[in-house]
Amino acid sequence: MSLPTEFHELAKRLNNWGRWGDYDEIGTLNLITDEVVRAAASTVTSGRRVPLALPLRQDGVQTGLIPGRVNPLHTMVAINAEFFGPGTVATSDDVVTMGLQAGTHWDGLSHVSHGGRLYNGRPADSITAQGGAAFHGVEKAGHIVSRGVLLDVARARGVDRLAGEHAVTPEDLEAAEELARVTVRPGDIVLVRTGQIQHYLAGDKQAYAYPSPGLSIRTPEWFHTRDVAAVANDTLTFEIFPPEIENLWMPVHALDLVEMGMPQGQNWNLEALSEACATSGRYAFLLAAMPEPFVGGTGTPVAPVAVF
Amino acid sequence: MSLPTEFHELAKRLNNWGRWGDYDEIGTLNLITDEVVRAAASTVTSGRRVPLALPLRQDGVQTGLIPGRVNPLHTMVAINAEFFGPGTVATSDDVVTMGLQAGTHWDGLSHVSHGGRLYNGRPADSITAQGGAAFHGVEKAGHIVSRGVLLDVARARGVDRLAGEHAVTPEDLEAAEELARVTVRPGDIVLVRTGQIQHYLAGDKQAYAYPSPGLSIRTPEWFHTRDVAAVANDTLTFEIFPPEIENLWMPVHALDLVEMGMPQGQNWNLEALSEACATSGRYAFLLAAMPEPFVGGTGTPVAPVAVF
Amino acid sequence: MSLPTEFHELAKRLNNWGRWGDYDEIGTLNLITDEVVRAAASTVTSGRRVPLALPLRQDGVQTGLIPGRVNPLHTMVAINAEFFGPGTVATSDDVVTMGLQAGTHWDGLSHVSHGGRLYNGRPADSITAQGGAAFHGVEKAGHIVSRGVLLDVARARGVDRLAGEHAVTPEDLEAAEELARVTVRPGDIVLVRTGQIQHYLAGDKQAYAYPSPGLSIRTPEWFHTRDVAAVANDTLTFEIFPPEIENLWMPVHALDLVEMGMPQGQNWNLEALSEACATSGRYAFLLAAMPEPFVGGTGTPVAPVAVF
Amino acid sequence: MSLPTEFHELAKRLNNWGRWGDYDEIGTLNLITDEVVRAAASTVTSGRRVPLALPLRQDGVQTGLIPGRVNPLHTMVAINAEFFGPGTVATSDDVVTMGLQAGTHWDGLSHVSHGGRLYNGRPADSITAQGGAAFHGVEKAGHIVSRGVLLDVARARGVDRLAGEHAVTPEDLEAAEELARVTVRPGDIVLVRTGQIQHYLAGDKQAYAYPSPGLSIRTPEWFHTRDVAAVANDTLTFEIFPPEIENLWMPVHALDLVEMGMPQGQNWNLEALSEACATSGRYAFLLAAMPEPFVGGTGTPVAPVAVF
Repeated sequence: MSLPTEFHELAKRLNNWGRWGDYDEIGTLNLITDEVVRAAASTVTSGRRVPLALPLRQDGVQTGLIPGRVNPLHTMVAINAEFFGPGTVATSDDVVTMGLQAGTHWDGLSHVSHGGRLYNGRPADSITAQGGAAFHGVEKAGHIVSRGVLLDVARARGVDRLAGEHAVTPEDLEAAEELARVTVRPGDIVLVRTGQIQHYLAGDKQAYAYPSPGLSIRTPEWFHTRDVAAVANDTLTFEIFPPEIENLWMPVHALDLVEMGMPQGQNWNLEALSEACATSGRYAFLLAAMPEPFVGGTGTPVAPVAVF
Repeated sequence: MSLPTEFHELAKRLNNWGRWGDYDEIGTLNLITDEVVRAAASTVTSGRRVPLALPLRQDGVQTGLIPGRVNPLHTMVAINAEFFGPGTVATSDDVVTMGLQAGTHWDGLSHVSHGGRLYNGRPADSITAQGGAAFHGVEKAGHIVSRGVLLDVARARGVDRLAGEHAVTPEDLEAAEELARVTVRPGDIVLVRTGQIQHYLAGDKQAYAYPSPGLSIRTPEWFHTRDVAAVANDTLTFEIFPPEIENLWMPVHALDLVEMGMPQGQNWNLEALSEACATSGRYAFLLAAMPEPFVGGTGTPVAPVAVF
Repeated sequence: MSLPTEFHELAKRLNNWGRWGDYDEIGTLNLITDEVVRAAASTVTSGRRVPLALPLRQDGVQTGLIPGRVNPLHTMVAINAEFFGPGTVATSDDVVTMGLQAGTHWDGLSHVSHGGRLYNGRPADSITAQGGAAFHGVEKAGHIVSRGVLLDVARARGVDRLAGEHAVTPEDLEAAEELARVTVRPGDIVLVRTGQIQHYLAGDKQAYAYPSPGLSIRTPEWFHTRDVAAVANDTLTFEIFPPEIENLWMPVHALDLVEMGMPQGQNWNLEALSEACATSGRYAFLLAAMPEPFVGGTGTPVAPVAVF
Repeated sequence: MSLPTEFHELAKRLNNWGRWGDYDEIGTLNLITDEVVRAAASTVTSGRRVPLALPLRQDGVQTGLIPGRVNPLHTMVAINAEFFGPGTVATSDDVVTMGLQAGTHWDGLSHVSHGGRLYNGRPADSITAQGGAAFHGVEKAGHIVSRGVLLDVARARGVDRLAGEHAVTPEDLEAAEELARVTVRPGDIVLVRTGQIQHYLAGDKQAYAYPSPGLSIRTPEWFHTRDVAAVANDTLTFEIFPPEIENLWMPVHALDLVEMGMPQGQNWNLEALSEACATSGRYAFLLAAMPEPFVGGTGTPVAPVAVF
């Protein structure tokens, strides 16, 4: 089995291999120039901060369906331990075991391959058990700060959340742009709100997981045209799931990560942000969303903050 | 054995219990007001970003001396797995086991207790194996963005790095302030550079660990007077180690975390920042350093970025 | 709330504190004397071995209901790694994260406390985050080999498996003894078969977990009278669950582990053993079921084998 | 680079591929027949048990030299937790993260490959991150009980422990056989004592690790001739390390595991056993050493017991 012609035609149109040199490992993050960041910082007028991460806990979004992607198991290795003797200052320490893609996270460019290739043509088998991702590890892109733009598709369509069968299209994105009165620019990080995470927040993990609204196979080209640096949303699957084209699984992942070299964010909680944007009428902000620099990591937890 | 009078007198002078209400769980982070953040964002003039985290890897800074504080063990749970059949889009996933205080991290306010008490008078035994920290967990302080100020003590003293026996004093901090031509203000996050992390970067973990320069027992009061929101530095122990007063172990931890309720950062790599500040002549910047919101966590990895 | 009078009366009758000295940490395992083991070995006449452990895998018996008791997460840290250069001998290595009580396991004596006490009167707070169980850790009982006796209650009652509401009584055990034509003796390890594990083997974890047949509150006294060394069965909960007496949760655990100091085994797969015993007409055998010696462990995975 | 001719000639002489069928996954464990086990049980005359496992603790034998093979990190996920309300029966639970080869362990047949092949000709790339070892996983060999024979090479040579440069030869094994007055038979598990583990027991991990006495490249053929089921010893490296032939790394592993399909045991504490054998004059015993059935595991912790 191989990927259909339709996929390959799309891939050709938005492919970024070689665009930033043969040795590039960060893809569209190259679009976040100093100028972009400077402009992003200038959007801050109130100093209000809205955090976008889900709490990290064992009762996280994972249901066990994705093998090995375990919710965080947080345990104490010391509780008020008086290491220097009775009556001395006491310390508590903790450890965690977790899937790097388990909660609010970035997919690194090495997270997906197709046809034996990663972004920029690197061989997929450069990822090994002993070293993780030799190319495009999340440690390579350690300072993601840029302008964030919320495209609140649910609000633009006048619903609390999109239906599970809703594929978010370029037209949806443009309607949300219009609502936002913001034009997406090169280097922006686009946050696409579907409202789907409300299921998880209400305690229904299964409904959150599947079926899920998400990005249509037509959106990568739109992001490519706008030269977006990264895209994140409030779903487990990022793209519409089950997929729009039968037996074409995860085409958006393949187009974004492999062809464009554009990081994806998943399980971002955009509910408070939606309120903040609607109330203030401002949909652009400074976004800080730095990956934890796991060497060879194909993904990373992230604790993003929007600053208005 | 109990803590000496000297400690208790200091503690009394800088105690913040009740200052932000009986139910406060974030301490001096309350000092980061919208106004502070707004002013911090306005310091950005070039858009240049300097990341401050060490890479997360098994060969991290921990030497095994602190029980349970294990360096990150990063393993792949899937490598180019074609979950939907041969020839389909393939994914790679990873997990990590690590001490939350193992690498570049924040100590949460629950990390230390003395006399059976945490910050704000909460009982130390509110930390449990099953739930972690019931009060002051790192998930409570999820959006640390403020003005950062580098106090480059090593550079101010004209050395590459401070000697292992050097306790950083208020006078050192003020000399560094003078070098920086910046006055530390309420809500600032102060980064104190000793240069000690050069040992680790050069491959010598033992020299990095011990003996270590670090903050003197006299500095918490200085931070208190300036109403600093948080302090981080480039050492494993944060404070001078072995300590200045015989058998008084970790007094700075106890004063900062328990008495003042001020988060501490450790193992921050300030070398590139030092260069950036010296070159540009600017020692104040926007600092984004959000905790990963581990529920009940007493510490958290962090990937800080300074934006100029 | 405290435990009811009924519990305390039972507890008094079967309490073993001090029986093997004030410093004893292995309880009824003391009953496995050299003589008992010698006799156990003499039961071997065919050499046939029947393993009793469930496979250790992520899709194990845990459903997430018991916080932190995670199914095994097995990952590779090296796959055919040629550490000494290309073309050299290659090695593969793996790690696991798992709850010690997640699969087929022994409960150690420190697994349960009531009224602030562990077996032999040790204070419950001797268990700490930094050291685990200071008393009665599973490492103390590292060589469990004895005579095993299968009491096949399901078969004795003529059913494939007991109903979820069935509390296994002393009368049930005696009926199974009669079926087995074996009299339980001091030092024996008794395996009680309910058939409940068939649910898990058929893929229904929820049905396996709850409701579950299991040992009645009346059985500890029976085991005490017979001076049994340990008891294991083929359920998740060991005892009848929900319990026989409203609001009296886990009384059998408390009687067995705390009062008697008798280890319990759970999630043992007794299906093949049932067949082997019925076919051969022999219900007594040599049983090897050594704990993994986790220092301070309150439980341990075990891979028991019955040898006929 | 490829393996030298000398290796290949040896390999040819002792290769067992196909000997137990093309689909065999347990190799020489096939030699442990019912008859062998029956005879093993008949060696039990006193009932005395000698455990052979090192305690599992963070301060284990691993030094960090072998990437990812982490010592056990044991943490509590519940300490006296009253899940059913205050005053009810309380439970303590724990989890572990550990390398399967970190302590006293068996190497499974899938642990080593050379020339792209595992035992019985299976392709080495059948081991994957998502599934571990598809062939020869340790779960396949779940009931290792047989006759054990201690070949106490150190004692036979009249030393406490062999020198770090000592390669244990067939002549050494035969001298130890003579001391033991036992002839190694088909299906036996041979325990070879060097005394090297004394270094670890005395607190010197580095001396334990390297240089290490161990089995010579000439021993696999000797084990092959005797049709031994498995071999374990009291070293970290199993074979002499550094190796006898320059640049021929781990030849014994390759011959034992890949060519013969014979499991190897490492880090077995044979000190008490040595005493027990010398005192009793008996060097053969019943040995129970069951792998924990990790699905896809290439190794497993084991808690072996010798029963006399």
